[in-house]
Amino acid sequence: MATLPTHVRIVEVGPRDGLQNEKTLVPTPVKIELIDRLTDTGLQTIEATSFVSPKWVPQMADATDVYTAILKKAGVRYPVLVPNLQGYERARAVGAAEIAVFTAASEAFNRKNINASIDESIERFLPVMERAKADGVAVRGYVSTVLGCPYQGDVPLADVVRVAKRLHDLGCYEISLGDTIGVGTPAKARAMLSAVAQEVPMSALAVHFHDTRGQALANILACLELGVGVVDSAVSGVGGCPYARGATGNVATEDVVYMLHGMGIITGIDLQKLIETGRWLSAQLVRDNGSKVGRAA
Amino acid sequence: MATLPTHVRIVEVGPRDGLQNEKTLVPTPVKIELIDRLTDTGLQTIEATSFVSPKWVPQMADATDVYTAILKKAGVRYPVLVPNLQGYERARAVGAAEIAVFTAASEAFNRKNINASIDESIERFLPVMERAKADGVAVRGYVSTVLGCPYQGDVPLADVVRVAKRLHDLGCYEISLGDTIGVGTPAKARAMLSAVAQEVPMSALAVHFHDTRGQALANILACLELGVGVVDSAVSGVGGCPYARGATGNVATEDVVYMLHGMGIITGIDLQKLIETGRWLSAQLVRDNGSKVGRAA
Repeated sequence: MATLPTHVRIVEVGPRDGLQNEKTLVPTPVKIELIDRLTDTGLQTIEATSFVSPKWVPQMADATDVYTAILKKAGVRYPVLVPNLQGYERARAVGAAEIAVFTAASEAFNRKNINASIDESIERFLPVMERAKADGVAVRGYVSTVLGCPYQGDVPLADVVRVAKRLHDLGCYEISLGDTIGVGTPAKARAMLSAVAQEVPMSALAVHFHDTRGQALANILACLELGVGVVDSAVSGVGGCPYARGATGNVATEDVVYMLHGMGIITGIDLQKLIETGRWLSAQLVRDNGSKVGRAA
Repeated sequence: MATLPTHVRIVEVGPRDGLQNEKTLVPTPVKIELIDRLTDTGLQTIEATSFVSPKWVPQMADATDVYTAILKKAGVRYPVLVPNLQGYERARAVGAAEIAVFTAASEAFNRKNINASIDESIERFLPVMERAKADGVAVRGYVSTVLGCPYQGDVPLADVVRVAKRLHDLGCYEISLGDTIGVGTPAKARAMLSAVAQEVPMSALAVHFHDTRGQALANILACLELGVGVVDSAVSGVGGCPYARGATGNVATEDVVYMLHGMGIITGIDLQKLIETGRWLSAQLVRDNGSKVGRAA
């Protein structure tokens, strides 16, 4: 336990990664209230929305309205996902100060999802990176399928390392390593993070686990022990898993924060307010609360 | 990861600890089929039933019928819970070769549940221990509330250590340390296990986590890293938590085994058969499958 960090920053991805995987359209006022409630819990980073084409992701068609309306608390980051230069322009038009870009470590996943190789997918957001750099906009990078792929199965560690390093070299201040289908276990998670940390400083890495097979907290613990200090999660575990019907997706922020606080790690988050936000959101979406802490407390 | 064990023995507690917390009476043939299916998965230890008074626990009124009918595979242990000498006689009458006794590390929990102090609760099963010793019957000991109590809150580590050591001194070959209400987090679990291991050999210790707040796998990982080699769990996470309505109880065996196998740890269990058994049981009980692996795979 010697290497456990004293502080962990949670990146709350519920309003984007979570809601994007909810089947029914969530009303814009609910999204706005969700983000404002999350801001009030003390979270420092809240991924607010995605400036993706509404044709691809109808759930995010209200990105401009949501981003404009939310309270932007001083010191809190509200990154927005952008897939291309068009999305970047829309994000900038409403004053977004931080964006996120994404790719996958799996060749098959990139081919299936965006009909491009890993390298081509990175080429595609080079113009975004250049503009962001010129505009002084911070960029967070997502690498998905770092522990397995629904199409190709195993993903070579070398591919994960290469993609993460490339995003870092291109200027991403932080790289979030995502077990998109929730197949990882602690030893594999640790081996993956160790390998990436050989090429990218640990301080520029985040972990993003899905709880599809219940392994997320154990994986997070394994990575904390290596010194990672940033964890992605979604309040109430909102959002499902598109690759396993009826299964859970993002690990619930409440469960992560309960573990961290129980180990004396500081997050700056008011767990009780977070629990209440998760219950409120579950009621709004008429879904079971995906946080065990939220169900038990 | 240096201290991870190469093998872990799972103690499947679903048929007893799990079913005991299910509200509706489970038909005897379902219990028998459950245990036979579990035997077929390769499990080495299956807690079969409880010879407790049917007045206290109606769900276990068929203990004699269940124990008599199940297939006892060579090399597999089928411990049964006994609360007193009367239960011991009933267990022995059907040929039980191994029993389990229980107490709590919390004074308040013992007072509330059996109106006795910790020491008095241990006194009460001394006659059982003596008879078991004379009869050559192996005894497993449960210590509950090791990381918190629904009545007194914190439980002093010294009480956990004292009770575990006492059970070991009395002849229990294995002491199962239970976080009955699922409040523990990894650092606390590790501190508790470390303290007990100062007085009782690690090879005589097992961990028993409830997943009420989603922490069970992370806690198990933390304890595996200290070298514990025996883990209690219940297929499909059967059984609820009597202290938190709507919450989960025992960690699901499937999720534990998935993690262990993912880390290259040998259990001897056929995970696919286990998953099928969990799904079958969930269908029989008309309840949601409490195993995320079972829902996802």
